Amino acid sequence: MRPSLTALALALAAAVSHAAPPAKPTAAEVLQASRADDWRPLDPGRTLLMQLGATGDAKGGEVLIELAPRFAPRHVANILTLVRERYFDGLAVLRVQDNYVAQWGDPEAESAEKARPLGQAERKLPAEFEVPLRGLPLSRLPDVDGWAQVTGWVDGFAVAADPRANRAWLAHCYGVVGAGRDNPADSSNGTELYAVIGHAPRGLDRNITVVGRVLSGIDLLSSLPRGGANMGFYDQPEQRLAIRSVRVLDELPPDQRPALQVLRTDTATWRALLEARRNRREPWFVHRSGHIGLCNATVPTRPAPKPAS
Amino acid sequence: MRPSLTALALALAAAVSHAAPPAKPTAAEVLQASRADDWRPLDPGRTLLMQLGATGDAKGGEVLIELAPRFAPRHVANILTLVRERYFDGLAVLRVQDNYVAQWGDPEAESAEKARPLGQAERKLPAEFEVPLRGLPLSRLPDVDGWAQVTGWVDGFAVAADPRANRAWLAHCYGVVGAGRDNPADSSNGTELYAVIGHAPRGLDRNITVVGRVLSGIDLLSSLPRGGANMGFYDQPEQRLAIRSVRVLDELPPDQRPALQVLRTDTATWRALLEARRNRREPWFVHRSGHIGLCNATVPTRPAPKPAS
Repeated sequence: MRPSLTALALALAAAVSHAAPPAKPTAAEVLQASRADDWRPLDPGRTLLMQLGATGDAKGGEVLIELAPRFAPRHVANILTLVRERYFDGLAVLRVQDNYVAQWGDPEAESAEKARPLGQAERKLPAEFEVPLRGLPLSRLPDVDGWAQVTGWVDGFAVAADPRANRAWLAHCYGVVGAGRDNPADSSNGTELYAVIGHAPRGLDRNITVVGRVLSGIDLLSSLPRGGANMGFYDQPEQRLAIRSVRVLDELPPDQRPALQVLRTDTATWRALLEARRNRREPWFVHRSGHIGLCNATVPTRPAPKPAS
Repeated sequence: MRPSLTALALALAAAVSHAAPPAKPTAAEVLQASRADDWRPLDPGRTLLMQLGATGDAKGGEVLIELAPRFAPRHVANILTLVRERYFDGLAVLRVQDNYVAQWGDPEAESAEKARPLGQAERKLPAEFEVPLRGLPLSRLPDVDGWAQVTGWVDGFAVAADPRANRAWLAHCYGVVGAGRDNPADSSNGTELYAVIGHAPRGLDRNITVVGRVLSGIDLLSSLPRGGANMGFYDQPEQRLAIRSVRVLDELPPDQRPALQVLRTDTATWRALLEARRNRREPWFVHRSGHIGLCNATVPTRPAPKPAS
């Protein structure tokens, strides 16, 4: 549980060599040997930058969220409308429930007088819990998953599926973002969002509309103080962390957009990374589990390489 | 994702009725119908109370840890010696890595001059990664687990096992406490401990000695700021949260011991609770997963009922 000299030496060896990776590489060696086209840029039209905390607030910071229009087109379109109309600016993180979710939205959403108006956004949307499996470009994970017969990734999103029913859905892994709802299945509209901050609550799968996932900054949400009221809602308004702004990346000048790349999950590099995590070759490990869980396999990001000048 | 009136009404109905639970009860209804002997008291000889933060530090609080002598007898004995000798008092949380672990110990452990002396505790212990499966009073979980052929609980601890090899081990679920080590398998001695604060890193199973689990206060550890150095170590000493004291409960006067009870996992109530989580009956749910994961099934605790006066 400490960085060992051996591990550091291996990392150094990988860093100085661009040779082909060994036959059974570690995760670090797989990433080191990745090719430029294993990585994709952010899509500025479906990526949100949320700034949390007032200027100078030590608790503040940035959360970068990639939306999933393929799985929740109506919700994603509505969230983009809400963001472009500045619906979220000045709202707050209202709820942090340990080992479960952090949730943000309008603290006055229940008040007819004080609730923030929705502008051009839809008040009511259909539930978008599932999509047809057929036609999805799914990179299969062969490992057993207790929650679904078939699992894998579609463009970085962890997906579970029932092939007989031809249904697929986004799995509630760490960092996944969904649209909070009340008891009616179609009572979410994207004004109230949550992110998973604990062990994957897969029992939520197919019960709520998943709209995206956090690409960076989930550590900020998961380290917020837990709320003392029922379900982790903050019982004191001053405990809420303010949302300074949310922007679609295409609203920002290119040089103000986070320069991040995401590993493509339809690549041999991703499959090699899964194998490196399934059977760890780092010297610290004495037992290889031979298994990797859908929600244990986090998709890497990296700073975009600087163009040669 | 909000407490609904229906859910509150159901909870109220459960609270006013001590009648037999319905045939397919919710988790709340199962707990409401539990019997006094479904619950056990804390064992004061193997439960630790860790006080974090200087007096008045808002980040501080209590972490209650139950040790697992059945699985790691040498480590648990050593930790008890260390605690009774006040080894941990004045040390600190040194590392918080997002979605992984919070770790505490001696910041000067690597320094021959400054490291805190170990007193009567052992410097070197054998690795205690596994125990024989045969003879373990395992309450089996029938649901599929990708990481192990057999899983279940032994006295509240999530256990995974390989029956052919006759091996069993504690699974790295949320809140599990283990003994940090360097590369040699037998390099842990209980002076450096970690708790799991994210999605279960089951790839650590059988690779490190698990010594216990957090019964309460894991939210305190999981909401600490993440460290900026490699592996989440704090890069600034002032970021570390101090350990004010650690005590074995039997060192405290009875009225200063947390009065908590733990649901027994060898009971029909626990099995009913698993079924209630496997197929959720609360009105919010529109889909029942028919599955529960080993690390999704948290063992409940409750305040000990006050004796009738």
